This record gives sequence, C-alpha cells and structure tokens, in this order.
Amino acid sequence: SADRLSTLDPSGTVFAEFTGLAIEHNAVNLGQGFPTLPVPEFITNAAIEACKDINPLHQYTRSEGHVRLVKAVSAFYSDKIGRTLDPLTEIITTVGATEALYSAIQAFVNPGDQVILMQPFYDSYPAAITLAGGVPVMVSLTPSKPALSSADWRFDINEIRRAIVPGKTKMIMINNPHNPIGKVFERSELAQIAAVAEEFDLLVIADEVYETLVYDDSSTPLIKFGSLPGMAERTITVGSVGKMFGVTGWKIGWCLSTPEIIRSIWMVHQYVPFSVVTPLQEATAVALEKAMTNDYFERNVAEYQSLRNKLHGMLSSVGLTPTMPQGGYFILADTTSVPDDAAADPTERRRDFRVCRYLTKEAGVAPIPVSAFYAPEAQTGEVPAQLARFAFCKNADMLDRAGEKLASYG
Amino acid sequence: SADRLSTLDPSGTVFAEFTGLAIEHNAVNLGQGFPTLPVPEFITNAAIEACKDINPLHQYTRSEGHVRLVKAVSAFYSDKIGRTLDPLTEIITTVGATEALYSAIQAFVNPGDQVILMQPFYDSYPAAITLAGGVPVMVSLTPSKPALSSADWRFDINEIRRAIVPGKTKMIMINNPHNPIGKVFERSELAQIAAVAEEFDLLVIADEVYETLVYDDSSTPLIKFGSLPGMAERTITVGSVGKMFGVTGWKIGWCLSTPEIIRSIWMVHQYVPFSVVTPLQEATAVALEKAMTNDYFERNVAEYQSLRNKLHGMLSSVGLTPTMPQGGYFILADTTSVPDDAAADPTERRRDFRVCRYLTKEAGVAPIPVSAFYAPEAQTGEVPAQLARFAFCKNADMLDRAGEKLASYG
Ligand SMILES: CSCCC(=O)C(=O)O
Ligand SMILES: CSCCC(=O)C(=O)O
Repeated sequence: SADRLSTLDPSGTVFAEFTGLAIEHNAVNLGQGFPTLPVPEFITNAAIEACKDINPLHQYTRSEGHVRLVKAVSAFYSDKIGRTLDPLTEIITTVGATEALYSAIQAFVNPGDQVILMQPFYDSYPAAITLAGGVPVMVSLTPSKPALSSADWRFDINEIRRAIVPGKTKMIMINNPHNPIGKVFERSELAQIAAVAEEFDLLVIADEVYETLVYDDSSTPLIKFGSLPGMAERTITVGSVGKMFGVTGWKIGWCLSTPEIIRSIWMVHQYVPFSVVTPLQEATAVALEKAMTNDYFERNVAEYQSLRNKLHGMLSSVGLTPTMPQGGYFILADTTSVPDDAAADPTERRRDFRVCRYLTKEAGVAPIPVSAFYAPEAQTGEVPAQLARFAFCKNADMLDRAGEKLASYG
Repeated sequence: SADRLSTLDPSGTVFAEFTGLAIEHNAVNLGQGFPTLPVPEFITNAAIEACKDINPLHQYTRSEGHVRLVKAVSAFYSDKIGRTLDPLTEIITTVGATEALYSAIQAFVNPGDQVILMQPFYDSYPAAITLAGGVPVMVSLTPSKPALSSADWRFDINEIRRAIVPGKTKMIMINNPHNPIGKVFERSELAQIAAVAEEFDLLVIADEVYETLVYDDSSTPLIKFGSLPGMAERTITVGSVGKMFGVTGWKIGWCLSTPEIIRSIWMVHQYVPFSVVTPLQEATAVALEKAMTNDYFERNVAEYQSLRNKLHGMLSSVGLTPTMPQGGYFILADTTSVPDDAAADPTERRRDFRVCRYLTKEAGVAPIPVSAFYAPEAQTGEVPAQLARFAFCKNADMLDRAGEKLASYG
C-alpha cells in the first residue's frame, strides 16, 4: 500500500469496532452516533416521492450540488450566517460531512503544512490531514475537574498562538457543538480564535454538524463561526443532513464558503465522488423547505433534550458521573467506578478501551472510549482515561434498557 | 489552494461543460453518459421500499459495504470471475466507480509512482493519479483508419513494455468495455497485459463498469480481467450500479479484489465518505437479487443494442461516419464534414471542442469532444481531432429528435 496509509490507525475507526462488538454481544449500542428514533414522515415521504421518479432524479445531478438543494440550504442559512449565500457558487454538497472535511483538506493542505486541532477531536480530522500529507498539531480542551457541564472544558488561546508556525500553519479546525464533549463555544471564545485566524491568515474549518441540537440550558446559543466579523472570507462551514434530519445513512453534507474556496473544494470533489446521490438530495431539499415552516427543528431539539436528561440521570444513578452537554448527541461519563480487568485484555494499554469493551461484553452497554479522540502519542498523561462517551440519539426504550443493564451488571 | 490542484484542468470536467451548454441552448444532450430511459419498476420499487423503513435503513451501514449488498454482489460475480468472492473481505462498496478509482489509487500510489493509462481514457483516471502525486504515463489505443468497428482500435504491447519503469511503475488501468471507444478487449489482448503485469509485478485496475452492455455482434464477450490466470491477486475490479441499472444518480459502485487489497482501499475509504448511502445500497441488493432471476440484463442489453443501431444509422445518414461500438453507452463519429468556425471560438485551439460547441449551439445536439479523453500535451498530433463522442443511453425519441436536428442544421 501507499505510504500515506501508515499514518492511519491500522485497526480502523473506533466506531466500527464498537458497533461490531455491540452486535456480537447483543449489547445496547450507545457507541456510534446514529439515531434510532423513527425518522419523521415528512422526511421519509420526501425520499419515497423522489424515488418514484421515472428517470431524472435517478441520474447524476450537478457535480457541485443539486440545484433545488443548494437553494434550500442557502435559504436555511442566510439569516443564521448573516449574509445571503449564493446557492450556485458559495455552497457545495458532499458525501456527508466526512467527505466535506476530506475534500476541503485536500484542496488546501500541502504536504508538510500544519493544521491546528483541538484535542479531543473527531477521528476523521487527523486522518484527513495526514492523508493529505499534512501535520496535525494538537492543542487541548481541558476540563476543570470535575466538569459538571461541557462549558467547563476550555482551551487556552495562548496555547493556540504558540502552536502556530507562521507560513507552515494553514488551517485551524473547530467543532461546535463539540463531539465528544458536547461543548457549545461562547462568542468570546470564538472571537479569540477569529483574531488568531486573522492575524496568521489561517483558514478555519467550522464543523457545525450538530448546529440544530443546542439545548435550552446551554450558556450560549450556537454562534456560526462564519458569521463573526471578517470570518466569512476564511471559514469553511460544514453541515450534515445526517445530523440535521437524523438520517446518517443518507450521506449528504455540505460546505459553505466564498466562491473561490468552494471552487477549490469542487476541483477535488469532482474526482472523488463526482456528485452526491440525486434522489436523496432532492428529498433533502423538499424536507428542508418543509422544516423551515413546520416546527420540526423545535420539536427535534426538545426530544433530544429529554433523551439527554434521561441518559444523564441514568448515568448519575449508576455512579458514572456525567458531564452535562450543551449540544450534540453525546454525554461524557466518568467510569472510575468500573472495575478495570487488565488481565482480560492484556495487550490493550489504554484503560478506557479495556473498560468500554468490558461494559459492552459484561454489562451489555457499548460506549466509546474517549482516548479514541486523542492522538496516540498523547495517551500517556493528558488523556482523561476514565472517560467514556455515551450517545443519547437513541429511543427512550433503548436508554431505559441500557440503564437497567448498567444498574444490574455489578 | 494546495499544489495538487495545479495538476487538474482548471475548467473542470468536460461533462459539466457540455451538459451546461446543452441546457443553455436547449440542445439534445448526447454528451454526458447518463440514461434517459425509464428506470424499470423493480428497481424504483426497491428504492421506494427501502425509504419506507422507519429507521435502520436511514442510518450508517457497515463502512466496507452494506451486508446484504456485498452478499448479492458476491453471488452476481462468482461464476463470472471464476471464484467465490468472500462478501465481507473481498468486496468494498464505494460512492460510484469514481470513488472506487479514487480510493484505490490513494491506497496504492505514492508521490512519484507511475501509472500506465491507455489513451484515450476516462477523465477521472489521470486526475485521481495526480491528486495522489502519481504520474500518468500514456500508451495509445489507435484506430486503423477508418475504424468501422471499435475492435479496429488496438494497442501495442511493446509500447506498454517500453513505458514501464521497473520499481516506479505500480499500476496499469484498463477500461473494458472502453469509454469512449466502445471497444471490448479480446482474450489475447488481455492476456498480453496480464503477462506484463505479472512480469513487472503491477497492480491492475480493471474498470468494467459497462460489463453488462456488450452487444451480440461483438467479436468477443466480456472477459473479466480478474478471471485470467494469476490475475485475481493483482486485480482491482471496479463495478457501477449506475451503469448496471441505469441509475447514475445513486452513486454506488464497488471494488472486488483480495482481502489485503480491499482492506487497504477501505483504510482510505473510511475517511473519504466513511460509508455509502444505506437505503439505496439496500435497494441495489434487492434489485440485484431480482435481476439475477428475472430477464433484466438480457432485455436491457437488447434495448441498448437497438438504440446503438438507431444512433449509428442516424450518424451515417448525416455524414458523421460512426465507429460501431462493441459495448457501452457511446459511439465515436467523424465530424470532418462539420464546418469548423474557428472565428466563433478564437481562444479555443482544439478543433473538436470548437466543433462540439458549434453542434450544441447551432445544430442543437451536444456530443463530447474526444480530445477531452487525451492528455493536454498530446493534443498536437496524436489526437483524432475530427472525432466526437455521442451517447445512445437515451430514449428513442431523443435520438430521433437529434437525428432530425443534425439532418436539418446544415
Ligand atoms: C461515521 S461513524 C461515527 C459517527 C459519529 O459521528 C460519532 O459517533 O461520533
Ligand atoms: C461522471 S459524469 C460522466 C459520465 C460518463 O461516464 C461519461 O459521460 O463518460
């Protein structure tokens, strides 16, 4: 294989491992972040209708994005981002947020270029960077211990400044709301990053895929990074239909940016997938048009908030002290009380992997070990090795079942 | 942007240009290769049924490929390829053949590695190679003039041998049936390539996306490259649902190879799209299971053969001498008789681009200029600058309309 593969974890993504393990052991899968809630009918109906088409909606659509969809996306964002996005030049649709991140990084990162990541990070970030020959440079998000709220995780802007090598550092990636922490960044925090991006002329990838899931007790609403003064011209905003409509299998996402930046991303995109699945782009457009006038987004976030509260209560009651997330799909929980049977997994040096495998096999509940969101070389001291991530994008019955299993396994 | 973008044609793919031009001038689009025939009901029904699912078929499926689909793909190929493919380790599903080619090349081509391409080639081949830092090395498919049949286009195995730099050359790419020529390679031709691949330890990408469209007057049936002696271990076979079922907008394809090769492709794939659209993978599985017992493939190829014959007759009758293709979607035609109004397009040095734009705007029929399938540096002598490619994956009415327009424009 090519040398670039040696920069990747040979075991593959953690999500595949734990979903596989959950299936094998018939465990409740609170690992991989995909919803198990019924998809609302206006969304499935949009898909069904598109598939009824006799021909055109089954063929290639525009490589940059299906026209009806980019128009709907423009309408959805224009007030949120503080300007009207031109549907044909300032939006590109992608094969989920994963391809959005991948193609954007291929379009801007040269071999040897550095990209600043906040650790913990979503696992495809460093992989996409090293596949482009780039170098991920980690700065820390760290909790004041114990972190009762995801807002207690903070970064130090001076650490970011020190990590920048002028001329070498090209980009900084932020994730807001944050996976796995659930943090929603304050305006003042984002403004610090914006000032640094401006000073050092950095691009910013703002992965805002959980933007529609910010809970009403969050200390801040979601602030779109691209709406900050001066940031429109250097921000690539990433969005996801999977997260917005709870249909992760549709594999549709987008980037929003300037015409020049979008064109560069498209130069890569046209030779990666060429275009994105037509019938489900049409369905997404129809669903998004509807969702802008029905109360889907309000009901959806309220439903997720009640599932969050349920999981939070359940983790507390079984002694897995949780951090209350402000947004997203996940809760971090402290697994200090779980017995760590190192002998059962003798080749695994990471405590949280041992514990999460144990919980999956013995308790029947699968979380994700948080060290999967840290660089391998970071795994000796900085990694909060007692933390596991539990997903609450799951129906209430599943969460109840998980609660019972966790309460009774000991 | 990153330096790798400078290796790409800044104007983007030719298909986008001519589809755009056809729409703008209300021309009959015989350019981009997407079918306009009604999609058979058993295929659309499979999509509709999958979209009716309440949840699981709307979520991420297995990153390597939806289990039901890889099983169906294995069943479909096992007798064709002369061995039983293990569905879980010898098949990966991809975002169309484009992503299959892209991820396979990223997985095996290092910067500076050379890849042999037969010219003319499909435009994503050299782009995928240079995006990986590789160097496309062209060998020629050339017609005995005039080529009445696509079988008259031949390569010289000695030219391929001379193009190989031991240690540097990693891969050879073949396309069978061939786009844009329509050639179906003879067993003896493929055996020559196989011998060279073995001698120099090359990987072979066999892009066989038009495999189900070989016409009954072809001098040879399709021979799967991976079925040749010794080739299973070094061949990456690429297939496409878009071509197989006439649904190019579904964006589903696959690679077939050894477990080791498939795993390397997956290492890239997991960070490019992560996974492929779930509901339409399920639908493809259902449709493929049905198509193996109903007579879809026989009826489909018969229908395309009659459309091919119609377009061939029509091109002959208007003096655009066609080459009869043995397989695929396309016919090459000689446009020598079309007036070349160089003054109308003064910045365009390629005759065929001028002529194809003229045909689109003035005659109202859009083909694709064949120099788009040649390297830019080849465009001085070797390019058959009088050739244009016409697609016949279009309903009979469209072909009739195109015939009338071509007959009357002069
Ligand atoms: C692409 S699989 C991972 C899904 C996800 O976003 C997560 O679990 O963090
Ligand atoms: C991906 S757009 C091009 C479609 C095609 O295969 C062709 O026209 O050659």
